[in-house]
Amino acid sequence: MTWNKELDTSRRYLMGPGPSDVHPRVLKAMSTPLVGHLDPEFIEIMDDIKYMVQHTFQTQNELTFVVSAPGSAGMETCLVNLLEPGDEAVICINGVFGNRMADIVERCGAKVVKVEAPWGEPITTEQIEKALSTCQPKLLAIVHAETSTGVLQPLQEIGNLVKEAGALFVVDAVTSYCGTEVKVDEWQIDAIYSGTQKCLSAPPGLSPISFSDDAVRVLENRNTKVQSWFLDLTMVKNYWAGAKRAYHHTAPVSAMFALREAYRLVLEEGLQNRFQRHLSNHKLLRDGLQEMGIHYPVQEEFRLPMLNAVTIPDHLDDVKIRQRLLHEYNIEIGGGLGKFAGKLWRIGLMGQSSSKNHVNMLLAALKDIV
Amino acid sequence: MTWNKELDTSRRYLMGPGPSDVHPRVLKAMSTPLVGHLDPEFIEIMDDIKYMVQHTFQTQNELTFVVSAPGSAGMETCLVNLLEPGDEAVICINGVFGNRMADIVERCGAKVVKVEAPWGEPITTEQIEKALSTCQPKLLAIVHAETSTGVLQPLQEIGNLVKEAGALFVVDAVTSYCGTEVKVDEWQIDAIYSGTQKCLSAPPGLSPISFSDDAVRVLENRNTKVQSWFLDLTMVKNYWAGAKRAYHHTAPVSAMFALREAYRLVLEEGLQNRFQRHLSNHKLLRDGLQEMGIHYPVQEEFRLPMLNAVTIPDHLDDVKIRQRLLHEYNIEIGGGLGKFAGKLWRIGLMGQSSSKNHVNMLLAALKDIV
Repeated sequence: MTWNKELDTSRRYLMGPGPSDVHPRVLKAMSTPLVGHLDPEFIEIMDDIKYMVQHTFQTQNELTFVVSAPGSAGMETCLVNLLEPGDEAVICINGVFGNRMADIVERCGAKVVKVEAPWGEPITTEQIEKALSTCQPKLLAIVHAETSTGVLQPLQEIGNLVKEAGALFVVDAVTSYCGTEVKVDEWQIDAIYSGTQKCLSAPPGLSPISFSDDAVRVLENRNTKVQSWFLDLTMVKNYWAGAKRAYHHTAPVSAMFALREAYRLVLEEGLQNRFQRHLSNHKLLRDGLQEMGIHYPVQEEFRLPMLNAVTIPDHLDDVKIRQRLLHEYNIEIGGGLGKFAGKLWRIGLMGQSSSKNHVNMLLAALKDIV
Repeated sequence: MTWNKELDTSRRYLMGPGPSDVHPRVLKAMSTPLVGHLDPEFIEIMDDIKYMVQHTFQTQNELTFVVSAPGSAGMETCLVNLLEPGDEAVICINGVFGNRMADIVERCGAKVVKVEAPWGEPITTEQIEKALSTCQPKLLAIVHAETSTGVLQPLQEIGNLVKEAGALFVVDAVTSYCGTEVKVDEWQIDAIYSGTQKCLSAPPGLSPISFSDDAVRVLENRNTKVQSWFLDLTMVKNYWAGAKRAYHHTAPVSAMFALREAYRLVLEEGLQNRFQRHLSNHKLLRDGLQEMGIHYPVQEEFRLPMLNAVTIPDHLDDVKIRQRLLHEYNIEIGGGLGKFAGKLWRIGLMGQSSSKNHVNMLLAALKDIV
């Protein structure tokens, strides 16, 4: 037992699938003594955050805010609020997180219509068109950036198909958000969720989400209660947006202080500059890895800039190298997930961890070890 | 819009129903640069926390850990994991939080058997005996410390009745935990949840919980999947306790740093000393308020020491006085909730906010204003 010792962690460089490194300004804001969660000063902070969530999602959606739980609870929030027993939902699966969405949909008592692509490849519009025509879809859900495979899914054309089918368009933007374009309004997205610990570089634990007016109409016209009390947006929205802020649960005050500062850093940098930075550091890493004979299994045009999934060369020992990176260099990279365990490394260049220094440190350490 | 300004909050004294004041050591630990959530150093922190949750719940339960979301998600965790559609659940209601439990039980498709007492009074064992005999209860759930009314519910005898009926005993210890006795094993409690922002004095956002072996057996023998993916303990337990820590969601690393330090403060003080401190500061406040003609509606033996619900005298303006306390003295106290809105003040003396100085400040400020 080590509880009686003061917290004494190593100073890691976080280059896995999240959390990413957090800026000192964010840590400092987080350590501010608390105010009450219904304090007028905290209401103002919630308003600031809401504005910055809208800005970064590139949306005017009124129902835009932050779920008081991690990204996987954001996923569940979007699905349980929109689905009722007996509904049909088209779920696109090409990695771990698509599977997770299908699992949640089943727990809602809804029917899953699966659209599957091999891990490492995007879903095609032809597949989606076909699936939408074979059922009465209430919604179609898809992962924008599959963290388990490193695939960036093009979304714009899919939005058109989903709207033509009269369905709601649900998007997982956990890893893409604040690292590459996520245009909620332009891409006709009806419900979207993300996490805070990826390209936003806040500590993990919260999930920014946004619902379109169409999604809100579906929510308001439900025949059954949302199965989760904690995630029921018919109540949560009055805590975030009602004229009189109605108590629902106690918001995580300190995490919101941190989140506000992380968003301020994003807006100060500017979205386009931030996307450009993520892209250029990705290229720097790619070139360096290529020189070492380490390659990306995903086709270039579908590669995530912020989450570099690369094939572990046959002669290298996955676990041993990741342990040496961690213990000798304080660098964390991610292993493979699901069927890619032991086959891929997942190197995150997200938010504060997307810097030339991070890339150079990792490349140098890898060269030392290999 | 104020997002472009640096965070600039007032230094409040938090004497409402939570959050309570947070010790500087906790804020400092929280601002530690992050490590990954699967880092061996973080696993050790989770183990430390688990040990301290067990210690403070006075339990040996193996399935003891922290839900990555606020106390109301802890409530939902206990109910959705133990109930299946068609089950019967006895829910004791004498305030807002009993009602919330009933709402969640209905969302599980289970049947609620209500046991109700007037707000401000505890539930009697006779009522419970009767209710247990009129149904086939899967569980009985009750609030130990009703934050909306200031009532402390005696539990030990109820535990015997529930076990005799062959049901599981579920307890809400959100406000009582770490401020007065909560003996999980001795009182035969099968599932218990709390929050971090009350007498534990960590920031809000997490929920310590514990399941007995009987509860785990019920969990493992379910016929249906738990309706919430995020709160499904059949998976979450492998993240917290499995031989190989299986990724489920990303734990809120910084909040866990803070929580560890808040627990260290509890263990350093000692549970009995901490309970005594909460009691003696309650008495100090009570005597001071009594001198001003402000009284407790709850009978003395059932009063919560950490959450002082007092009747607002007829000649005093609820909102105006709370606003003056906040704006002129930086002191937050809570208003009434539900049917007690406008009728009660709820004065928290919880964790770090349970000190002679807090009591003296509040009494002096109230005398100035009134």
